[in-house]
Amino acid sequence: MNPIRKCLWANMLLRLSMMAACILLTGSAVFVLQLEEANAVMPSGEYGKDWGDPKGEECVMCHRKHTPGLYTEWNKSKHGQRGVNCLDCHKADGKDKDGFRHKGQLISIIVTPKDCARCHTTEFEEMDGSHHSKGGQILASLDNLLGEVVGGPAAVNAGCKQCHGSEIEIGEDGKPLPTTWPNTGIGRINPDGSLGSCTACHARHRFSQAQARTPDTCGKCHMGPDHPQIEVYNESKHGIIYHAKVNEMNLDSEKWEAGVDYSAAPTCATCHMSAGGGEKPTHNVGERISWTLRPPISVKNNLVKLKNGDEFDVPEGQPLPKVGDKAKGSKVVEILTWKQRRLKMQNVCTACHTDSVILGHYNQFDKVVDLYNDKFAKPIAAIMDDLHEAGTITKAPFDDKIEWIWYEIWHHEGRRARHGASMSGPDYTWWHGLYEVAKHTYSDFIPELKKVAGEKGAKKLLDKHFRPIDGHKWYFEGMSTGQLDTVRKGFESRYGKGSLK
Amino acid sequence: MNPIRKCLWANMLLRLSMMAACILLTGSAVFVLQLEEANAVMPSGEYGKDWGDPKGEECVMCHRKHTPGLYTEWNKSKHGQRGVNCLDCHKADGKDKDGFRHKGQLISIIVTPKDCARCHTTEFEEMDGSHHSKGGQILASLDNLLGEVVGGPAAVNAGCKQCHGSEIEIGEDGKPLPTTWPNTGIGRINPDGSLGSCTACHARHRFSQAQARTPDTCGKCHMGPDHPQIEVYNESKHGIIYHAKVNEMNLDSEKWEAGVDYSAAPTCATCHMSAGGGEKPTHNVGERISWTLRPPISVKNNLVKLKNGDEFDVPEGQPLPKVGDKAKGSKVVEILTWKQRRLKMQNVCTACHTDSVILGHYNQFDKVVDLYNDKFAKPIAAIMDDLHEAGTITKAPFDDKIEWIWYEIWHHEGRRARHGASMSGPDYTWWHGLYEVAKHTYSDFIPELKKVAGEKGAKKLLDKHFRPIDGHKWYFEGMSTGQLDTVRKGFESRYGKGSLK
Amino acid sequence: MNPIRKCLWANMLLRLSMMAACILLTGSAVFVLQLEEANAVMPSGEYGKDWGDPKGEECVMCHRKHTPGLYTEWNKSKHGQRGVNCLDCHKADGKDKDGFRHKGQLISIIVTPKDCARCHTTEFEEMDGSHHSKGGQILASLDNLLGEVVGGPAAVNAGCKQCHGSEIEIGEDGKPLPTTWPNTGIGRINPDGSLGSCTACHARHRFSQAQARTPDTCGKCHMGPDHPQIEVYNESKHGIIYHAKVNEMNLDSEKWEAGVDYSAAPTCATCHMSAGGGEKPTHNVGERISWTLRPPISVKNNLVKLKNGDEFDVPEGQPLPKVGDKAKGSKVVEILTWKQRRLKMQNVCTACHTDSVILGHYNQFDKVVDLYNDKFAKPIAAIMDDLHEAGTITKAPFDDKIEWIWYEIWHHEGRRARHGASMSGPDYTWWHGLYEVAKHTYSDFIPELKKVAGEKGAKKLLDKHFRPIDGHKWYFEGMSTGQLDTVRKGFESRYGKGSLK
Repeated sequence: MNPIRKCLWANMLLRLSMMAACILLTGSAVFVLQLEEANAVMPSGEYGKDWGDPKGEECVMCHRKHTPGLYTEWNKSKHGQRGVNCLDCHKADGKDKDGFRHKGQLISIIVTPKDCARCHTTEFEEMDGSHHSKGGQILASLDNLLGEVVGGPAAVNAGCKQCHGSEIEIGEDGKPLPTTWPNTGIGRINPDGSLGSCTACHARHRFSQAQARTPDTCGKCHMGPDHPQIEVYNESKHGIIYHAKVNEMNLDSEKWEAGVDYSAAPTCATCHMSAGGGEKPTHNVGERISWTLRPPISVKNNLVKLKNGDEFDVPEGQPLPKVGDKAKGSKVVEILTWKQRRLKMQNVCTACHTDSVILGHYNQFDKVVDLYNDKFAKPIAAIMDDLHEAGTITKAPFDDKIEWIWYEIWHHEGRRARHGASMSGPDYTWWHGLYEVAKHTYSDFIPELKKVAGEKGAKKLLDKHFRPIDGHKWYFEGMSTGQLDTVRKGFESRYGKGSLK
Repeated sequence: MNPIRKCLWANMLLRLSMMAACILLTGSAVFVLQLEEANAVMPSGEYGKDWGDPKGEECVMCHRKHTPGLYTEWNKSKHGQRGVNCLDCHKADGKDKDGFRHKGQLISIIVTPKDCARCHTTEFEEMDGSHHSKGGQILASLDNLLGEVVGGPAAVNAGCKQCHGSEIEIGEDGKPLPTTWPNTGIGRINPDGSLGSCTACHARHRFSQAQARTPDTCGKCHMGPDHPQIEVYNESKHGIIYHAKVNEMNLDSEKWEAGVDYSAAPTCATCHMSAGGGEKPTHNVGERISWTLRPPISVKNNLVKLKNGDEFDVPEGQPLPKVGDKAKGSKVVEILTWKQRRLKMQNVCTACHTDSVILGHYNQFDKVVDLYNDKFAKPIAAIMDDLHEAGTITKAPFDDKIEWIWYEIWHHEGRRARHGASMSGPDYTWWHGLYEVAKHTYSDFIPELKKVAGEKGAKKLLDKHFRPIDGHKWYFEGMSTGQLDTVRKGFESRYGKGSLK
Repeated sequence: MNPIRKCLWANMLLRLSMMAACILLTGSAVFVLQLEEANAVMPSGEYGKDWGDPKGEECVMCHRKHTPGLYTEWNKSKHGQRGVNCLDCHKADGKDKDGFRHKGQLISIIVTPKDCARCHTTEFEEMDGSHHSKGGQILASLDNLLGEVVGGPAAVNAGCKQCHGSEIEIGEDGKPLPTTWPNTGIGRINPDGSLGSCTACHARHRFSQAQARTPDTCGKCHMGPDHPQIEVYNESKHGIIYHAKVNEMNLDSEKWEAGVDYSAAPTCATCHMSAGGGEKPTHNVGERISWTLRPPISVKNNLVKLKNGDEFDVPEGQPLPKVGDKAKGSKVVEILTWKQRRLKMQNVCTACHTDSVILGHYNQFDKVVDLYNDKFAKPIAAIMDDLHEAGTITKAPFDDKIEWIWYEIWHHEGRRARHGASMSGPDYTWWHGLYEVAKHTYSDFIPELKKVAGEKGAKKLLDKHFRPIDGHKWYFEGMSTGQLDTVRKGFESRYGKGSLK
């Protein structure tokens, strides 16, 4: 038995006897902790080759003293309990440009998905090529232009890139430059060319499945004015029950199949990644998503998977390749239409819901996206096109106030409405969402349009793009006296005469 | 013993022996779970008549396979543990327009409060007639006009109605139309004419009391820019201690009397619904509320209860009927003045607080509402009246920008200030609340008033409605040099000379 | 044995035997509860003199009946378990102006830090003189002027002062006036002249260390649009892991040393107050803070501690006294430069992190503050100075719209960016923070500047203060065609041709 293993087993024995005492003295907390460890399974890979490097003992013994919190988290982890030590993950080889000598060992600070893939191959392959892994490629986006130019690089570094991922730059000493590190963005561009960061979700050095499955984990990035998924979830029935019954959620289960290992409520991971309703688990987190709710105008996306592990979306209505076709320097190996993607999600729903609930939900969700698209996004986008075309405003984004208004309508408020509807958060659908879209359309966008295009020019554009749409009828023709009287009467019966000011 | 009961008892026995093993093997989590079940009491109603239909076995056995999560939640519930099965709640009769044949049984998807009332009579009667049950009657409100016309029906469906309740429409096949279902709004208008939805709070199919008592349950609807009760609660001392000590809250207790069954902190349910300080529990959630904080101008409301189970509010100062009087097609059976309603709430406070805290709180709360009413809401409402009267703006709401400004001042920001003060959330009282009211009054409402009424017209209106109010003196006469100098000096002593820009 | 102690010990015995039963019958919840109590240590001070007044038995017996929740919380507390009773804390003496007779005893409602200091001397001394204790001294601040004059005193009472602390006023009957009580603001000005309120964090009457250490405790005040520390924490990795692993956080530990007693994640208390990485615990909560992120322009602050227990900050670059010098009516006893303050914080980081993470974090954080300071705050403040100097706007704050805009840029949005970066909350750094700063600078501040100073005057001011700054180049010279084409192409490859509107 190598010394580290011996030390770990001794530790285990000590803990086991402590555990016995603990059952009598301290109850469940420690006990549950031990349980998680007892459940730990062997990673794939070969002992002494892929993990369990005996030279790691020295690392462990020293970090135990100098970064005790880090050591303890590692020791409690499945890695720690099985002897996967510092060196197994942090060991570098001569070709790594981010390798440097530390206490006699050639190591690298950054552990990349490629490193993790030595044991966790399936998870790596599912993640690689997914939307998540491409989060770092936001260079060619309006958001990045906004961040770098209008904000400033320091804000992009500590803001955008902490979720999207930075391109890690390595100094002459083999260590990451402090401007690009620490970074745990989901689409980090690593020195070895791999994309992503496993620790984005599996926080180091415990790498707890239970933690990775909590909604808060996703909420680090999926939050805020432009994509408040965690806020929507917390408002939803799913979130309410999760918070009430998290102790029954069995979050540490290896299999964690919805309806089988737990039943109280789903977390984000349940619906988007985990097993349930006959679906297999996957680290390709976008696979079950049928709408894209991010762009100015939402579309339903078919998914094309390639032999080289990459994949891309093809919007509904656009020509779709066939399995076997060449595409983007590789070969198509699988196609999931948006209907098939949706079916995968709906299968998970069936673990807990019957058809009437599932289909009713999608009906209501689709109609909100259609309302947003057709009443607001399309006509406004068309007017913006016309303004740019006519040179009324410059082609540069963000130098005209009307561009900020439109940007927030689709990028912030319109997404909130769409995300709210997608996950049953009524307040986000309406007050944080479509209410704001409507308010800013009528009370900000149109007034600003009149400023930049003149009353006459604005009228022409509104007549062309807004008037044909039924939902804007009230704006052109006023509300009917009947509608107003009903409201006034209802109001007065609740709050007293004259209460509708 | 009928087969289902037998199966349930066998299951119970199996679980009991598993439980014994679990104590040794898995610690407390499972154990606590069993406890909750062991505590389950028999519902009222008669076995074999009101519940426990033997034909339900087939439903159970099939759904166990096809919707395992739903089955498990039911099985863990008091219903499941006592044999109240699918058919007991979902069985329809020939007269139900939402009945349809499913695997040989005539069933209905929607379980209405009337269905639940077969066993839970008291809770039904308390809820029926309350403000909650009338949540679906928002047709005659400004908010609904805003939603339907300015937003769009799809947003009302997935937004407003998911909290307020939709009117469920039934298709030719006896199933609810997907545009109106799923819906668990508190004031749902059901096919059998009953109002409300028990599952709004008691999430199916576990119907856990502990879950219904969590603040998050109320927060599904009582959240967001226009009524952030859950945000206020979470900020308050009550919320802080609740989150720290939720494990001591005894949320599963049958009686759950404040100060007796638990003492750490109250949840929403504690103060508004539950037993404590001598008060009996009630499902009439508005009974202990003395102010209405929703309308543009807050009033204190007396409550009139009728023989037919209905009730209505009469604002302080308006004529109040007497017990025995005829009213709204029925007879007055009880009157609670706003002072009596407040006393009920204060009685609950006494479970944990002494008089100085309770009376001081109400003093501070009342004064915030008065400040909001008298300094801001009343004069602005009066100006809006004058503008409408004079035809300066149209009678249609929301087609003039000033109408949006006033709407958000009372409906969003003014409510936040009032709710913040009512539940001791200082940040909501000020920064999210009265600060926004003041800012938008001075920097949005008044400038917009000058636009629509002209400088001269605005001056006249402000002189009439704002100038007589002491709190606006600074606006007309400037701040005194003394005030400004004090501030400047204080600022510079903290941040250095010239720091007050 | 005095009667109360006897009663408490009898109670203890009863509980111990109940506990034995509980292990068999109810599992861990109750057990953990007992544990916390069993851990309770004797406070310092002398029995029968500083605490344990036998006359307190009568208080206890009566409040047990009349405020059972209060009694129970006290009884579960370390105080209750050790006999520190009502009278020990609430007893007044003849000189106290807030003393009054209650059931034969001279008592005071308010327990001040000076009262607590009879036993908890060290904590009192660390707190006294700190920034926290001075929270009530906001009279000479812009915020207070805003609150009192623009808002109104009632809102200051129920808002600002509930966090900052009110000056408690005592009525003729010796009881606090309801306008100033209840108040648990951190800088409360007490009738005995002491500053602060221990119950601001240690909620009465349990005074639980575990509760005081939860982030929610700090979040009561450190939240909202102008300093969303709790929101930033909850978004950060620290917060995510805390919520996932709170059961392993050992929050009741007496010592609670980071990396030793717990390792999952830090709470606010960990970094700002507690033991870890060789640092001793302290109730001087600002000691480890190197930047002040509150004022319009951030500075790094050196800390000067005085013999009389007071202390003050000296911004970097300003003359610093030496140990032994006279200052502010006392003598300098210790100086912590901003670098030493930062080192203290970084020492705590080392409990869990290695240097590359710690130094990289501070590098990224500093750069965000610099970006905020240099690109936005300094030039805008300079323009505001020029406007005031030239008389373009009045010296009174808040009567010109441009003053509201600048106020929110630094006080709300600019703080959010800085706080976001300081605690690794990317969404607050960018979307809630610097994005809003930039948006309001370009689309609100500059347009408003043109209104008040005219196009020509605005151009002159912008040329003077904005044009020399590289980050504003795009505003004056437009974005390059190259930049725009890259963005357009990236956008179209993701969302389809023409998608960048």
